[in-house]
Parts: sequence; structure tokens; C-alpha cells
Amino acid sequence: MKLMDYRRTHNCNQLRAKDIGKEVTLSGWVHRRRDHGGLIFIDLRDRFGLSQLIFDPEISKDAHTLAGQLRSEWVITARGRVRERGEGLTNPKLDTGEVEIEVKTLEILSKAKTPPFSISDDQTETHEDIRLKYRYLDIRRGDVVQKLLMRHKAMMVTRAFFDKEGFIEINTPILGKSTPEGARDYLVPSRIYPGNFYSLPQSPQLFKQLLMVSGMDRYFQIASCFRDEDLRADRQPEFTQIDVEMSFAYPEDIQEILYRFLKSLFKECLNYDIPDTIPSMSYQDALEHYGTDRPDLRFEMPLVRVDEIAKESDFTVFKEQLKEGGCVKALCVKGGSDLSRKDIERYTEFVGKFGLRGLGWMKKQEEGLTSSIIKFFSPQQLKALEDKLGAETGDLLLFGAAGESLVNQALDHLRRLIGKERDLIDPNVYNFLWVKDFPCFEWDEEENRPQAVHHPFTMPHPEDLDLIEKDPLKVRSNAYDIIINGYEVGGGSQRIHDYEIQKKIFNALKLSEQEIKNTFGFFTEALQYGTPPHLGLAIGLDRLVMLLTKTNNIRDVIAFPKTQKGSDLMMQCPSSVNQKQLDELEIRAETKEITWI
Amino acid sequence: MKLMDYRRTHNCNQLRAKDIGKEVTLSGWVHRRRDHGGLIFIDLRDRFGLSQLIFDPEISKDAHTLAGQLRSEWVITARGRVRERGEGLTNPKLDTGEVEIEVKTLEILSKAKTPPFSISDDQTETHEDIRLKYRYLDIRRGDVVQKLLMRHKAMMVTRAFFDKEGFIEINTPILGKSTPEGARDYLVPSRIYPGNFYSLPQSPQLFKQLLMVSGMDRYFQIASCFRDEDLRADRQPEFTQIDVEMSFAYPEDIQEILYRFLKSLFKECLNYDIPDTIPSMSYQDALEHYGTDRPDLRFEMPLVRVDEIAKESDFTVFKEQLKEGGCVKALCVKGGSDLSRKDIERYTEFVGKFGLRGLGWMKKQEEGLTSSIIKFFSPQQLKALEDKLGAETGDLLLFGAAGESLVNQALDHLRRLIGKERDLIDPNVYNFLWVKDFPCFEWDEEENRPQAVHHPFTMPHPEDLDLIEKDPLKVRSNAYDIIINGYEVGGGSQRIHDYEIQKKIFNALKLSEQEIKNTFGFFTEALQYGTPPHLGLAIGLDRLVMLLTKTNNIRDVIAFPKTQKGSDLMMQCPSSVNQKQLDELEIRAETKEITWI
Repeated sequence: MKLMDYRRTHNCNQLRAKDIGKEVTLSGWVHRRRDHGGLIFIDLRDRFGLSQLIFDPEISKDAHTLAGQLRSEWVITARGRVRERGEGLTNPKLDTGEVEIEVKTLEILSKAKTPPFSISDDQTETHEDIRLKYRYLDIRRGDVVQKLLMRHKAMMVTRAFFDKEGFIEINTPILGKSTPEGARDYLVPSRIYPGNFYSLPQSPQLFKQLLMVSGMDRYFQIASCFRDEDLRADRQPEFTQIDVEMSFAYPEDIQEILYRFLKSLFKECLNYDIPDTIPSMSYQDALEHYGTDRPDLRFEMPLVRVDEIAKESDFTVFKEQLKEGGCVKALCVKGGSDLSRKDIERYTEFVGKFGLRGLGWMKKQEEGLTSSIIKFFSPQQLKALEDKLGAETGDLLLFGAAGESLVNQALDHLRRLIGKERDLIDPNVYNFLWVKDFPCFEWDEEENRPQAVHHPFTMPHPEDLDLIEKDPLKVRSNAYDIIINGYEVGGGSQRIHDYEIQKKIFNALKLSEQEIKNTFGFFTEALQYGTPPHLGLAIGLDRLVMLLTKTNNIRDVIAFPKTQKGSDLMMQCPSSVNQKQLDELEIRAETKEITWI
Repeated sequence: MKLMDYRRTHNCNQLRAKDIGKEVTLSGWVHRRRDHGGLIFIDLRDRFGLSQLIFDPEISKDAHTLAGQLRSEWVITARGRVRERGEGLTNPKLDTGEVEIEVKTLEILSKAKTPPFSISDDQTETHEDIRLKYRYLDIRRGDVVQKLLMRHKAMMVTRAFFDKEGFIEINTPILGKSTPEGARDYLVPSRIYPGNFYSLPQSPQLFKQLLMVSGMDRYFQIASCFRDEDLRADRQPEFTQIDVEMSFAYPEDIQEILYRFLKSLFKECLNYDIPDTIPSMSYQDALEHYGTDRPDLRFEMPLVRVDEIAKESDFTVFKEQLKEGGCVKALCVKGGSDLSRKDIERYTEFVGKFGLRGLGWMKKQEEGLTSSIIKFFSPQQLKALEDKLGAETGDLLLFGAAGESLVNQALDHLRRLIGKERDLIDPNVYNFLWVKDFPCFEWDEEENRPQAVHHPFTMPHPEDLDLIEKDPLKVRSNAYDIIINGYEVGGGSQRIHDYEIQKKIFNALKLSEQEIKNTFGFFTEALQYGTPPHLGLAIGLDRLVMLLTKTNNIRDVIAFPKTQKGSDLMMQCPSSVNQKQLDELEIRAETKEITWI
């Protein structure tokens, strides 16, 4: 049987009053069927929208009879005439709401089993695992489609921008070499060289630097990257980054380019104007004033250090922490004196999760600060606290005292929680910040040696070159992170183009000649054949699209995402493979059965 | 020491006579140094081109002294004034050949060891393995740069085209499920689920079909694909394809889109106008007349079947082959009677490599056909041969007799060889051809069952649906390949959207219920939730760029290619990994040492 020509004249979101009278063909999915007064109404759906089909036995008995069999999600094609909807029957919520199609011919292209959940925007009641298992049905929801369209748009804008700026898109290998510094690699056994492995790239870092050695001058790529880590909620085993590198430039040059990129991206994707400049903050200042290297500056409420005042007070809780080398920091919650003791207890419990054992508080009333702990402070000290924190009547002051990094972590999270709870954040605003002057190294307790904070190819701050050997933990790097709304969206650095400096860095990391040779040998060799000064950055595409689409779930912006355990519920993978495959690779493994939902 | 600002005012291919007098900064690689009459000349190179620097002790003693130390491939930055080259010293071969830069300040940014080969376009004397080992130096050659730039351009044009046509770029996973039908998968051991594996995609085939099930309507992606096969010269373990899929369309629709894509690609990349239409040929006709399903139609010289004439002749060599079910085909080499016996012996040897045991020949002279075998043919038969082959005076006829596929293979290769040797191919022409109506199945001797010629999701030709169960080997598929200059650049098909037909195909392939469930279970499940008619194609990007850049070496168009044994000579991978990595994956393997160049 020859099927009716199912090619569409219009999509399901295209017909308007001006099309009345036209003969059209629509194809799509049955979204909803209603039988009403001898007529059958079908809302036909495609990714563009909905159109109403009407089946009237007076118009076509055959089509009407066939329409009677239709069920949700069947795929059909229908031909007919566009007509005005009857009086009072227009649907202002639909773009096509003024018209309907009086169907003359109908054909069923594909039937459908009853889907495990209904295809509607609100899916709060369906467990995410079920939606992931039937991801192809989940994507039918307009909400998911819009996020994938935004991702497409963002990628198109990205490539157009960097192309125009003279960057060359170059594909770097997925099958690479395992370099165990950094996160855990995914490995790929080689069949031709048994017992040897490729590894999937954690980033194209070395390749892009080699491209600079090769003189390609400006490189970019939207690159697939892989990390075999125990996943946090906002991580995926494979993720995508906008990867950029350029030669003969300084950090301010690439920061300027990134600024223009973000300006163009937010304008074209959201018609949003980002501010005229992106402010910078040093790593030290970010930690000092916000307790984190990625502060959310959509609202104020900084962490204020009150060590000096606390030291002079009689409050032993604070004084003891200070004596042990800790600090006392405070937040001033504007208008927060409306918060009850119960609220404050809840906050105390919240910071407890980060190891902070208590939360001091004071309320600023007309008559001055009130609290059970004010008795430990002199009037001058209380006045000094008020001044330092800018406390006004109605404000609440919250104090944390402990080791510095603990206080920072706890109060950072508390600050974000209060910001959210008290509606201090304008959801329509994007806030951009550069954070700079990171330390080059941090101490690795486990390995008892310094580790690179970014990666070992990061150029130290030009003023700190002498410190690499003398006092590595004091060396600042020439690196920069871009923070949007408190998320680290990307970052980069000036790279080392001088082999002598690179050797000093490897020495500071206590890497042996042999380790260097085995893992980075090809790269250190390359550095010696004429390397231009170069720098770059990488932007997390997934995170960027999350910001553009205002979702906190990374799986929303990936067509076929994996769970936090790295499994694909739809394909049911990873999976066992047959013995022949393992034999060919000369590897042995015992499969532990996985139970799938 | 603070370095001099190395940011460039111009690249090395930018300065012209109109810039004379300007103060400029150039940075790049020392391409060549010449000391001449107290002056030092440096050809400075970057990926854009060359500029001549001149160091005159009268202008700057310091710069001149420093310039005396410069060696090839050192990276420098130089500031100075653009001036006219002296009379008779202009270099018309260089775009910047009218000017030179009189350097006032010079700084060495990076020294270089002597490279293992010189950075010049002609590298025929350097073994490719050496160039691959030092790929970052190889890329410095303008020749390689141009190919990578063309690849970038082709990708940009591709994305712009498909975006404009309403296709959505969607990233599909690299970590997928192993589906052993088809080529061999690369596997990735899972750490969280020991003994279970991901696999790298051979293509995003199932994902793109699922995207059609999900209603995305039009999808494209420039996708990384992986095959663990023993590599032919023009294959790589990882390759890139332009992957396209659309719903509610017919083969002619996507062919029309592909035509417009190729038109736009060749126009924008090469300013080349492709013909107004792309002709089609059936698979059967292609085999019959060219011995291959990817004929190179840049020149004629078809294979002509002369079974009927041969059968009537007295030439037992031909007659016996025919009796055994073989065939006799001939080529008419225009003007080929100038070919010596030695040439013909060489051809005979050549076809011998494909199993053809001899090559009959006749020359058309003024007086008629001459040859040692004409005595076996009657004058009428000779006349019939001349007519059938269109032989004119001066032509050479070559005959092959054997089993059909052997004759086809041997004469196809011979035809291509003669075409090349006799300059029948215009190197400036691109020839496009659709080949259609492939068989759906072929017999797999080893497995003793039919195998899918394309993949098991290919829709059979609508007229052949009834044959799937009755006579599967007779079923034609609704597939189409695009051939350019005799290379299969891509292909695609209408897909099965009807689960009942899909079941019949699986039955014809003798797949058990359990096999289907284990490998394609999620996919056959998806097909049952409302699948639109859909189709697509995939184009080999690497091959396309090879055609655009006129190279036969796939490694030329890949930034960091692998050898035919799948190794990366630069990174020296695959490589051994440490025991901890294997322990975490719970796999056991014994490493066989690899010897690297």
C-alpha cells in the first residue's frame, strides 16, 4: 500500500488567521483527542507547537472514522482546509489558536503504546530516572526541546564569534595518552597493542598548547571531555567545553575577547545586555570577603572579619578560636531581625554540616544591639561591630568563629542560602566576575608534596618567578576564572612557554625525571623547538547553557545524559560485552551484574 | 626582567608598500637567516606568511648583535620601521616582497633546538613517521596549515548551511553501549560497574533516530566516530562525519538538501561551481558498467559485457568461463594502440593481483582488429565487438573473463589505473554521482546467514517489502550513496519507522529475540512509542576535506593523526598505565612493550 504523501506544508506552530482557506498538510503526534458533539478534535503536536485538527463526518466519513481510533502519541498526517475557529472557541494561549484544520484525509503513520508519563511541560511528579529511561519521550516535552535549541544556538553563536576573531576550529583526538596528574582518566584498551591503553581527554590542554607550538596562532574547539570521577550533582562523566588558545597575547587580551564573546552570546541568545565591564577580584579578596573563589555578586552581604574586635572582647568562644589561629567573620543580614530563634537555629544546623559548631548572633534594635552574647562586649566594641558591619536598625548579625577555611566555607554557604531565602537575588540578572591571582600550588597532604592548583603548565605571576624554588606555596599563578552568578563557568591562564621555567615547576611538584618523561615527555620536548608565549581558557558549555536556560540540572541541557553513577538508563550501559571482545583485547574482567529500572 | 611587549601590530603576511614608514611589531619564527655585507636578514614566519627583517648596526647595534645569535625556529619579536626594499631586491614571490622591516628592537622569546627536518613545503624526503612524531613541527609547514584551515572552513560552512535549513546541532554521547553488529567497537571499562563497558560510537545512528522519535525533526552534528578495525591507508581509528537526520521526508528531499549543501560548500571553499544536477545510477548499473558501486565518472571507458559475442566465438578461455557462470567484459582504451606489449604485460600483472588470470587484447588498426586471439572470432563477431565497444582506429580493447565479481573488481581497478596513467582525468573537475537501490542484505558465508549491507534499520525499497521473508537477498534498500570522483563520500537511507517491518528485518538476519533485546532492546522499544517516517545520511568529513584539498593521505587533514596501526607517534600512545588504574577498573592485562621510533 502506498502511503499518502506525509510531507508537511506547515509545521504545527505556523498557521494563522491569514492562512484561512488554504489547503495544508500537517504531520505530527496526537497530543490530545476530544470527541464532542459528533466531532473529533485532535491537538496535533510537533516540536514547534500545536495545531487543532477537526474531524467532521460531513466533511469526510473515512477520516472521521479513522480519527476515532487515534490515541495519544500516534503519528499521523492530515490534509485539509484551514478555517476560522467558531465564535468563542479561539484559544489565545496558542499561537495557532485562531484557526483549525478541517481534515479531509488522514493517515496513521505509526501507532504508539501508552507512554509511561504524559507528554506535558510539568513533570514534577515523574521520577527523573523514569524520564531518563524514556529520554526520547522526555525530549518531546517543549521544555526540554527549548533547552536543546538554546544549546544549539549557543554553539552556533560561539563558533561564529571565534571564527570572526580569527580562531581556527581544530579537532583534537579523543583517543589520547593517559596522564595521571589531575582527575581519573577513562581508559580504552588497545587491541593491536595488548595491555596498552588510550585514554579519553580530560581536556585538550596539551593539544592546544602544541597547536600554539605549531604556529596555528589562534585555536578554538567545542570539545568533548571526560572525567571518571564520583559525580557531583552538576557533573557528568562526559562534558563539553569551549576551548580557546592564542599566541603572542597577554591575559587582558583574552579576557577582552571573552568579554566580547559573552556580550554577543547573551545578546543573541537572550537579548540580554551584559554590563560594560567585568570587574576583577583577587583570589585572596574573594576568600576574605565571600569565603569562596567564586562569589555570587548578584547580592551583597559580604563576610566581614572582626578578629580585632573579638580579640578585645570577653567572649571566650571567639577568643579561643583566635588563639588557635582561627578567625571570626560576620554577616549583616539586612532587615534580618524579623528572623525568629527557630530560623537562627536552622541556620546553626545548616552551618554545622560544614563543621561550624555554632553561630553567634546579634540584632540591631532602635536601642542598639541585643543578644545573649552582648554582655561579653563593651559598648565601644559593640559600636565598632555596628560600624564595621554597617548594621542599621532591623538588621541581624551572624558570627562564625573557627579555622579560616571552615569559617569561609560555612559562611559562604550560609550567605548563599540567606540570599536565596530572602529573595536578595534578582533572577533576571546575570553577574560577571573575574577572579585572578590564584596560588600556583597547594599542599597535597596525602602525597606530601605540592600539587598544581590548575595544571602544571600554568605560568606563575611574573613577579613571583623567583619564589618557585624558594617558597612555592607563595607563588601566584597568571590564571583567571570567569564567574557568573557564583558559578565557575570557565577559566584559563598564561602558559609556560619557557622550558627552563617548566622544569622548575616540575621540580617544585617533586616529579622525577622519569615521571616527567613518561607522561609529558613529548610535550616538554615540543616546548624546546620554539614556543611562542601563549595563553587560553576553557568555558564549560553545559554550565553556560544551564545559565542561559535557568536550570540547575545539568541533565536538562544534554540530549542523552548519564546518571550520577555514570550510567545511561535508556541504553542500559555500561553493559557486559561478549568474551570474544575481551579476548581480542587480551584483558580479563569479571562482570558484576547491573540491575536496571 | 620585564619582556618587551610582544603583541603584533601585523602578521607576517600583511605589510605592503602602502605601509612604508609605519612603526610595526612583528612576532614569529626565524625561518631563515642570511648575513650579507655587515647586515643581517631574517625571514620571519608565522602561519600567515613571511616578512623580511633587516638588522643594520647603524640603526641598532644591540639588535644587530642579538640578531647574530638567531637560529632557525627561534621565536622572536621585533619592532621597527617598514621601508621599501632596495632596487632589484623586491621578491615578487612573496606578498610582502616589496617591503622589509628595519629593526630597532629585538627580543628572543624562545630558543629552539635544531629541528629534525626543515620547515619547508617540500617534505618528500622526510619519512612520514618522523613528521608524525614531530607533528607540531610538521604543522608549521604552510602546506599542512592550509589543509587545517580548509577543514575549519568546511566545518563552518557545513554548520551555517544546516542551521539555516532548520537542522539542530545536538551532541550525542561518546560513552555509549556496545552493539557488536557492524565493525569492532572500542570499549571503555567502567569503574563504578566493574566488568561492564561503555563503547565508543561507530556512528550516532541510533541516537539520531531516537532524536527523530523524540520529535526533534531535523538534526545534524559533526560527530566523532570510532572503529577498531585493521586500518586501510585511508582510514583512521577515529574519524569525523557530518551526520544528518530528518523526519517526514522522502529520499529525494534529503538528496536535494545534500545537493544544495555541496553546492554551497564547493562554492565557498573553492569558488567551484558544481553541476546543476547530480545524476543517479543504480547499484546494479554501477557494477555492470564500472565494476564498482563507486564509479569515478570523471572519465568514460565503461566496462562492456560481451558475453553474447564471446559465447559464439571459438575462444575456449572465454567460453569456459561463461560455461562456469562467469562473464566476459571489455574496456576500450581510446588511442591505446600506442601501448606496447610490455605495457599490456604490466596491466596483466596488475589485474593478476585481483585474481584475474589473464587479459585478452585487440588493437583496432586501419585494416580492422589485430591480435593473436582474433583467429578465434569470425569477421561478424569482430565487427560486433567493434560496434559494441565503439572501437575506432587507434583504440585498444582489453578483455577480462572470470567470475563476475572478480572481473568487476579487476577491470574497475584497471580502468582507474589507465585513467590515471593516460591523463584521462581532469584534476580540476569534481564529479558527483548518486548510487541507489543497493541490496538490503548480503550472504555472510562465515555466519551462514544474511547480513545487513548498510545497517539493520535501513528501510527496504517500498516495492520489495513482500520479499523480506520470501527472498531477502533480492530485497533492495531505500539507500543512497554519494560518490565524488570515485570515492564514497557518504550515504544514507530511509529508516524503518514501523516496528513490524523492523521485526521482519531482524528475523531475516536470524537474530534471536534475546540478541535483539540485549543489543537493540531500548531502540525497538522506542520505535513503538510513535515514530515518524525519517531518513538521513552521513558524510565523511575527512574524505570531503581530502577532496577539497586534493590529497590522498587522510593524515594530511587531521591535526593529530594516528598511524595505520592506530598509534600516535607524537604522544607515544597507546601506552601502559599504572597498576592502580587497572585495579580500580578491576581488569587484568599484561602489557606488551611497544617500541617507538
